[in-house]
Amino acid sequence: MCAEIITIGDELLIGQVVDTNSAFMAERLNECGIVLERIVSIHDDRRQIIEALDDAFSHADIVITTGGLGPTKDDITKQVLCDYFETHLIEDARVRAHIEHLYKDRPDVLNRMTATQWQVPEAAEILENRVGSAPLMVFRRGEKYLFCLPGVPYEMEIAMTEQIMPYISRQLSAVSNQTIIHRTLQVCGIPESSLAILLENFENNLPQDIHLAYLPKDGIIRLRLSAYGKEATQQIDTMFDRLQFIVHDYLIVTDDRPIEVHVGEVLRAHHATIATAESCTGGKLASLLNRHAGSSAFYMGSVVAYDNRVKHEVLGVREDSLRQYGAVSEAVVCEMADGVRRLMKTDFAIATSGIAGPDGGSAEKPVGTVWIAWATPNGTTAECFHLGRLRSQVTDRACQRALIGMLKRIKY
Amino acid sequence: MCAEIITIGDELLIGQVVDTNSAFMAERLNECGIVLERIVSIHDDRRQIIEALDDAFSHADIVITTGGLGPTKDDITKQVLCDYFETHLIEDARVRAHIEHLYKDRPDVLNRMTATQWQVPEAAEILENRVGSAPLMVFRRGEKYLFCLPGVPYEMEIAMTEQIMPYISRQLSAVSNQTIIHRTLQVCGIPESSLAILLENFENNLPQDIHLAYLPKDGIIRLRLSAYGKEATQQIDTMFDRLQFIVHDYLIVTDDRPIEVHVGEVLRAHHATIATAESCTGGKLASLLNRHAGSSAFYMGSVVAYDNRVKHEVLGVREDSLRQYGAVSEAVVCEMADGVRRLMKTDFAIATSGIAGPDGGSAEKPVGTVWIAWATPNGTTAECFHLGRLRSQVTDRACQRALIGMLKRIKY
Repeated sequence: MCAEIITIGDELLIGQVVDTNSAFMAERLNECGIVLERIVSIHDDRRQIIEALDDAFSHADIVITTGGLGPTKDDITKQVLCDYFETHLIEDARVRAHIEHLYKDRPDVLNRMTATQWQVPEAAEILENRVGSAPLMVFRRGEKYLFCLPGVPYEMEIAMTEQIMPYISRQLSAVSNQTIIHRTLQVCGIPESSLAILLENFENNLPQDIHLAYLPKDGIIRLRLSAYGKEATQQIDTMFDRLQFIVHDYLIVTDDRPIEVHVGEVLRAHHATIATAESCTGGKLASLLNRHAGSSAFYMGSVVAYDNRVKHEVLGVREDSLRQYGAVSEAVVCEMADGVRRLMKTDFAIATSGIAGPDGGSAEKPVGTVWIAWATPNGTTAECFHLGRLRSQVTDRACQRALIGMLKRIKY
Repeated sequence: MCAEIITIGDELLIGQVVDTNSAFMAERLNECGIVLERIVSIHDDRRQIIEALDDAFSHADIVITTGGLGPTKDDITKQVLCDYFETHLIEDARVRAHIEHLYKDRPDVLNRMTATQWQVPEAAEILENRVGSAPLMVFRRGEKYLFCLPGVPYEMEIAMTEQIMPYISRQLSAVSNQTIIHRTLQVCGIPESSLAILLENFENNLPQDIHLAYLPKDGIIRLRLSAYGKEATQQIDTMFDRLQFIVHDYLIVTDDRPIEVHVGEVLRAHHATIATAESCTGGKLASLLNRHAGSSAFYMGSVVAYDNRVKHEVLGVREDSLRQYGAVSEAVVCEMADGVRRLMKTDFAIATSGIAGPDGGSAEKPVGTVWIAWATPNGTTAECFHLGRLRSQVTDRACQRALIGMLKRIKY
């Protein structure tokens, strides 16, 4: 059982929009044991859409398109699909009622453009788009299915979760025939090439249908074992245990969830609280800690102290320390962590201060130098890191190092 | 002159990694007048790589691949390319010297895995990868070019900017034959369908080679005019002026740059400073304001006041206001803005307080309700917004509304 995704939209091909939809859909398909063979991004262009559909149907059992379903003139997917499946648009009373209900408090939206949204291809089965006006369409071609979803990420996400995946599970009994299992762990503090040498033997002796992949990001390397088929999936636990044992010295966590989720979980379990004081990470660390629902249980707040005056006046960093050691120093970052822990009355605190670049570097403290401090009920410690040369790279890696350091200190 | 991108990596097809590389490359190609026809993402799989190359060469003049160039066993692109172009790997002394220099302080990285990186296909021209060990390879096939780049985003970005685009400009004189110009403006406060009606006449009367696209994101709709060819590009200014005139009531800015860049520009021009006090946006607004280099000129800092105690104790929000009106209220958000402006001694301040969900909503204040306040030397004002149902959607939209509101208040 394999699938192909076709994302439709000029914006993807001129670089105005990053395609985040495909990764979301890929994950859902994989969870159900469906191999995603390929993702193709094309223009809002009749010829390209038709060629892509032909091509996808030639090797995939499930084809999913996103995009081109809006009411505006640049969106042509629905009309092209009518031609492709030799059908025509008809008014769908259920869709109409849904859209009228959706916008009952927004008469300005209920105009004749929006009215085109309840025109749907007669040959398509229509599923409810709970949060938007673009209809979710299902076409059949023999044993194969085409699902057409809107390109707006949150509409697509809800459609995929609530409608498409349950539909696929119901209709396609073949789904359960192929099993795919992925197991991921995350390591830090070892170069990818050294890790590859460390794992060479392990990798060479893996069963045929189990594969190992290296996924470096923001200073963390995720190691993913994938097992295809019944036999392989029965062996994956053993292999995963062996993998953990080999990388033990660098191991952070044994799943794929972001580090901040692990930090939050441990804090919550201990009824403990946390705050951050950020200079170079500028609020990124705070927003990682509170991006998941339920974070108000452990996350109290943060001070982004970009300016030195703020470090002194709000966080209580001593002017002496700033003058003598500079803002990017062990002394200052520890005082920042202690300061915000005191100010917010939390159990734990993290502070960052570094040179994110492109300017501000020196021979002694080049761009990429970041001090991170962790304040705990048992005292405050800090470490210095060198995290690369690009601004966003430095701050992203600093956040991950800060979270990993915190996780270690609250776990033990 | 048209191009195709092939991104290679299992991680893309199981949804573990979002492909941000393609958008970056697409933008660079477009700037040079090269039409990106298609983006294809495939597995680290010999058959798929070969098929994708055949397919791409059949219609594109320039093919770019990313990924699969690492030293680990799952990376097979280099070997497959050797077979595809009937060549073999040889040691490249220049690449070796570069890698040895790159890791001169990291003897642990200079191991035998890394040594495979200076083995390159004999038939390829090698360009320098300034920041990494994977070689940048150029293959020719008649008049067509294949560029192979690493998948690590920052390596790819530097390679694309410093090597590939200059190479393309030098080698392919045909590039200048086709001109593409994009002009974008951003509007807010009108539904997409109403905008389409407003623009119906304009759109129907556009010259043949000028296209209008609607790109809604985070509550902002970007309207992009694209002109293809010499004649169309001469008319685009007139069309863009006309477009501005029609959408005038909703217009925010007349280019594609993020709103925070505009805010920063105006602040810098006025030697003015800003701070933020964030509840529901949780640091996102701060990190938008300081993500671009040079932000320390105007951005002083922020308080993320997630907990009510922090709102009171750090920002000076009155306990009375919290009790009487609740944290998500005009009174509280105004006191937050005033509080952080006082605390950080800035000219301007923004505060946000809302219900990001999924929990915490009520009939009176449903999920998505966000109060935003702007403090200026001329006083403090606030507005209430209803920004949707999904946590990340609510906070992303709130940040954009906060920035738009600030831009209006500092411009006039």
